[in-house]
Amino acid sequence: MSITVGIQGASGYTGGELVRLLARDPDISIKFVTSQRFAGQPMSAIFPHLINDPELVCTPLNDLSVVEGCDVVFCALPHVTSMGVVPELLKRGAKVVDLSADFRLDDADIYNEWYGEAHKAPELLSEAVYGLPELYRSNIKKARLVANPGCYPTSILLALAPLMQDNLIELDSLVIDSKSGTSGAGRSLNQGSLFSEVSEGFRSYKAVGHRHTPEIEQGLSQLCGKKVFVRFSPHLLPQSRGILTTCHLRPVGKKSAKEWQELYTNFYANEQFVRVLEPGNLPGTNYVRGSNYCHLSVVPDPRTGWLVVVSTIDNLVKGAAGQAVQNMNIMLGRNEDAAIGQLPLFP
Amino acid sequence: MSITVGIQGASGYTGGELVRLLARDPDISIKFVTSQRFAGQPMSAIFPHLINDPELVCTPLNDLSVVEGCDVVFCALPHVTSMGVVPELLKRGAKVVDLSADFRLDDADIYNEWYGEAHKAPELLSEAVYGLPELYRSNIKKARLVANPGCYPTSILLALAPLMQDNLIELDSLVIDSKSGTSGAGRSLNQGSLFSEVSEGFRSYKAVGHRHTPEIEQGLSQLCGKKVFVRFSPHLLPQSRGILTTCHLRPVGKKSAKEWQELYTNFYANEQFVRVLEPGNLPGTNYVRGSNYCHLSVVPDPRTGWLVVVSTIDNLVKGAAGQAVQNMNIMLGRNEDAAIGQLPLFP
Amino acid sequence: MSITVGIQGASGYTGGELVRLLARDPDISIKFVTSQRFAGQPMSAIFPHLINDPELVCTPLNDLSVVEGCDVVFCALPHVTSMGVVPELLKRGAKVVDLSADFRLDDADIYNEWYGEAHKAPELLSEAVYGLPELYRSNIKKARLVANPGCYPTSILLALAPLMQDNLIELDSLVIDSKSGTSGAGRSLNQGSLFSEVSEGFRSYKAVGHRHTPEIEQGLSQLCGKKVFVRFSPHLLPQSRGILTTCHLRPVGKKSAKEWQELYTNFYANEQFVRVLEPGNLPGTNYVRGSNYCHLSVVPDPRTGWLVVVSTIDNLVKGAAGQAVQNMNIMLGRNEDAAIGQLPLFP
Amino acid sequence: MSITVGIQGASGYTGGELVRLLARDPDISIKFVTSQRFAGQPMSAIFPHLINDPELVCTPLNDLSVVEGCDVVFCALPHVTSMGVVPELLKRGAKVVDLSADFRLDDADIYNEWYGEAHKAPELLSEAVYGLPELYRSNIKKARLVANPGCYPTSILLALAPLMQDNLIELDSLVIDSKSGTSGAGRSLNQGSLFSEVSEGFRSYKAVGHRHTPEIEQGLSQLCGKKVFVRFSPHLLPQSRGILTTCHLRPVGKKSAKEWQELYTNFYANEQFVRVLEPGNLPGTNYVRGSNYCHLSVVPDPRTGWLVVVSTIDNLVKGAAGQAVQNMNIMLGRNEDAAIGQLPLFP
Repeated sequence: MSITVGIQGASGYTGGELVRLLARDPDISIKFVTSQRFAGQPMSAIFPHLINDPELVCTPLNDLSVVEGCDVVFCALPHVTSMGVVPELLKRGAKVVDLSADFRLDDADIYNEWYGEAHKAPELLSEAVYGLPELYRSNIKKARLVANPGCYPTSILLALAPLMQDNLIELDSLVIDSKSGTSGAGRSLNQGSLFSEVSEGFRSYKAVGHRHTPEIEQGLSQLCGKKVFVRFSPHLLPQSRGILTTCHLRPVGKKSAKEWQELYTNFYANEQFVRVLEPGNLPGTNYVRGSNYCHLSVVPDPRTGWLVVVSTIDNLVKGAAGQAVQNMNIMLGRNEDAAIGQLPLFP
Repeated sequence: MSITVGIQGASGYTGGELVRLLARDPDISIKFVTSQRFAGQPMSAIFPHLINDPELVCTPLNDLSVVEGCDVVFCALPHVTSMGVVPELLKRGAKVVDLSADFRLDDADIYNEWYGEAHKAPELLSEAVYGLPELYRSNIKKARLVANPGCYPTSILLALAPLMQDNLIELDSLVIDSKSGTSGAGRSLNQGSLFSEVSEGFRSYKAVGHRHTPEIEQGLSQLCGKKVFVRFSPHLLPQSRGILTTCHLRPVGKKSAKEWQELYTNFYANEQFVRVLEPGNLPGTNYVRGSNYCHLSVVPDPRTGWLVVVSTIDNLVKGAAGQAVQNMNIMLGRNEDAAIGQLPLFP
Repeated sequence: MSITVGIQGASGYTGGELVRLLARDPDISIKFVTSQRFAGQPMSAIFPHLINDPELVCTPLNDLSVVEGCDVVFCALPHVTSMGVVPELLKRGAKVVDLSADFRLDDADIYNEWYGEAHKAPELLSEAVYGLPELYRSNIKKARLVANPGCYPTSILLALAPLMQDNLIELDSLVIDSKSGTSGAGRSLNQGSLFSEVSEGFRSYKAVGHRHTPEIEQGLSQLCGKKVFVRFSPHLLPQSRGILTTCHLRPVGKKSAKEWQELYTNFYANEQFVRVLEPGNLPGTNYVRGSNYCHLSVVPDPRTGWLVVVSTIDNLVKGAAGQAVQNMNIMLGRNEDAAIGQLPLFP
Repeated sequence: MSITVGIQGASGYTGGELVRLLARDPDISIKFVTSQRFAGQPMSAIFPHLINDPELVCTPLNDLSVVEGCDVVFCALPHVTSMGVVPELLKRGAKVVDLSADFRLDDADIYNEWYGEAHKAPELLSEAVYGLPELYRSNIKKARLVANPGCYPTSILLALAPLMQDNLIELDSLVIDSKSGTSGAGRSLNQGSLFSEVSEGFRSYKAVGHRHTPEIEQGLSQLCGKKVFVRFSPHLLPQSRGILTTCHLRPVGKKSAKEWQELYTNFYANEQFVRVLEPGNLPGTNYVRGSNYCHLSVVPDPRTGWLVVVSTIDNLVKGAAGQAVQNMNIMLGRNEDAAIGQLPLFP
């Protein structure tokens, strides 16, 4: 099988990560990478670690002729930019995995409210499939356009899906406290992203009102069939990669620790990328670094009756590029772990 | 004024920090430092950064003759060890600030339950004053024995005191999600504390049932006059110093953002070490590093009606050695910021 | 092709790295992993990131029956221990890649002098091939026992080989200043390896007399045909992975910057894992992280006539496990990049 | 004694550090801080850790009326900008400590060559005193204008002065390999300073030709009375603060380890901020963090006859703001450690 792909927006960390994962797959050929700023330059001018793929030279964003003949295009552009480009990609016959926020929300009004822009392609919102394979694999298989989930929502929906589906959460108790590495903020130049500002410096950066909130609420609502509002509070970690999310909640009904554990292990029994840890172990971001894995723990508190559910992913892999490849694999009927089967890098 | 102090247990990070703070105070003379393992050796053999105080040589733990003539002894020994020593220190006429957990809990049974040891000096529990100056200054002033608060409880009680006191929290909603640097685990040799295991690796390490839980519950219960149970979940940060705590809660009654802000600024109006941040700013551990300050933000979520309260301290200063010095200053009627007035070290 | 391998000493970082690299190769089957301390336990009890290979259970070190039928055994034991085991492995018909220092030095007396132990298998020293593929590929191909180079020597010999071979260095000018991440110190419990001791704390740890010195001198001497003495000074970086070596030297004869560059690019023209950077770029450890690549720069100083040669590798990959796999590939006639072709992980 | 000072250029890390050190000195009053970008805003808008000095509001750079009545003005502006301002400050009667490179070089032509700008105040070059107190204290005492040394030169000149003075170095052997934390690059927005680019990523950033080279050569030449050329190669550390310099050199003549040690301890016997470490100990940046100390080791290599001299300082303190305050103290006849006597912050 020979697959031809292209990458729109190759100069960000997600673009670099797509190249890292795809370049070594013998069945994949990367036809193009685009970058407005680096048009005409090789990928290794953008990313020194990609020195050994000098053949990839960036084309400008607006030259869509390169799309012809591509089986799949990954769109790793910023939100708002992406929704201007995606319809053109589809018109040229490519399947699209969009890594921006532009096609994740079903409702154009909610998009407008949170992203401050009217949606430019609202007609595609109902067609776009939310690309969380563990929950929506069969829809992804048939999709022409996949909206790759956000990094926080991925960590949260995988953590809570086993509970949501059976309505096992007292919804007004649910608190979601997330922590992300700096690569989640991308490669743009902000004082707050400088090494000297971040090192030895954990901080709260958006105590309430983060833009991933509506995506989280939409995902949870679909799982339980009720309108869900969440308390979601993200923090910035002094590390590059990794998200760890701690969910606190009062469950509906009582189960033993063993039963909670079984609920999770059964739910994910057939999922190769989700690992429910044995009791006594707890997730750490460095145990999934560089990989497409999600590690989960479910811990009941015998004193209070609450549950703590902890999940971790690499935000650039399962939270972005890896999951995008996983979605492509499903769309094309490939092995789901092709190009993304590597074990985590530790230490 | 000339004050003579001693430090029991000088080889841990807290002991080193006490020396750092006290050695430069012109009114203080450190009469002794003890260390079982390093008896006979200078402090600089333990801590290369203390090279310029070669005159401090460690005495063995059991030689209590050095206590004679000391105004105050800081006891920075491990729990259980501490309660064997403290009564002896008091007998010799010293005031004591104990930095272990041994005298923080009022109830010897609860101590036994959480620390797995019968208390050896239960008769002192009612005398010991909980050394959180912002809440118990007047008692500290008269105390002979101060139990210096734990690092997590300090960050939590300062965050919640303004709300607890007026019963403004729906107690069954309260979730406390804390994150600590590695120095909180001390200098002992554990695989989980190695650099290669921690760097780029945020993790959950005690999802439920951390030993600081009863101290937090006791402190909150005393503030509101009701029995409080908390959901408290700590995490390990890839940094040495700093604790940041995020409290999530549903308030009783409605207030505007401005009113919540005023509640906090008024509560701490006369406290030099607690800073309520302006709206728009949020705490970061690196803005208090090396100092005795606590930074606080109170952020209402207009969508859900919940409050997020975020606090940060340096776990070795306001969370340990600095607060111990603050307590000493109060006990002796000194300026409360003597020896601990330094501004934070940033970056 | 189906290859059966075993790993002696699987509980260190190098052992974990061997599993990471080999477990995903479809042609390789890991028959055994040994660990004295973790005998009977799965690899995931030692390394949480290897959770998805639960079938690997450690066997005790002294049970050599598992070696039967293995094509290759990787020996990742500590020095001294290794030379006791390797002869037994060879007797059982396995080819051996030994990652310790035990078979790197040709001269048992020098081993004795630097490692403080008489060599237990001196008869194997002349047979053992020094496993630096870029320099000794043809010998490795025929070897039964390969001594995998040390991490510092790998970074140094690759940096200097193009100069040494043509005797282009004034040997008494040569200074080698190396910097290594903490994983080079292994997973053993030392105070100096604790996160709190290392973070924000670059230090010199062995200004002169490091044990890799004789290996470096032997390697350089063989390349130039003269007895070489080096000034080698290693430092400890506040990061887990990566070695960067800066060589300072006065060259014999004058060349233009372009000529020096060509000397290097020509020397490594056919080497897939060594990349000579374009002028203007300089090596960084994070551009090779997790990969088997070595990045090199050669920079002449027009003011002084000296050369600075900078090299970087991932100490656990090209400096240990990756190079060991590369050696195995050569010994078995496989593609040299099988199992180790991954691109670096950045950021 | 009451001293009035001002700070030109308060928005960089050095400016923040000057405020940190000076604000707590009871004898000093900070009359003004300037910042073009933050004019009209409080220092705490620039530096959240300075929240408790809300009374400091930035004035614009060009309003020099604030200088009237100041005893000393610290000029922490970028080079080139600084030489435009300093003459104005002197005219208004203030003593000036300039932290830029503008008045460090005696020779305006060399300045022009390395900084690419003609000097705007060459008439001040001969008056300006190079502010390295351990070497030029008596001149500093009488100075109106002190040029505060660069961070690298400080670490290097202190390391080599005991040898230079007696001409104990074979000058053509000298190699200087330096490593600096990211705060040395200031707070400006560069991709290479982003956390994700620096963390876990040590790199060479200017293998030859760094701008501090002529300052180093001038300093060494003055000490030994000969024209010195150096091989100086700096690197970037994944940490915020700290410089560690490793000097490699062949000494003139032979001495025992004890004699080298005594040479250094005698040379610095009366210097409170320079500590020559005992044999067996080696410098680490974290043992001087936040302090004005310099730690030094001199290590002879018995095998090669070379010396390794290692020094470390906090680049923002002894390498910038702390040394500036030390210079002020000397200029005003104060205790030399006033405001800068703090012990290092470890861990």
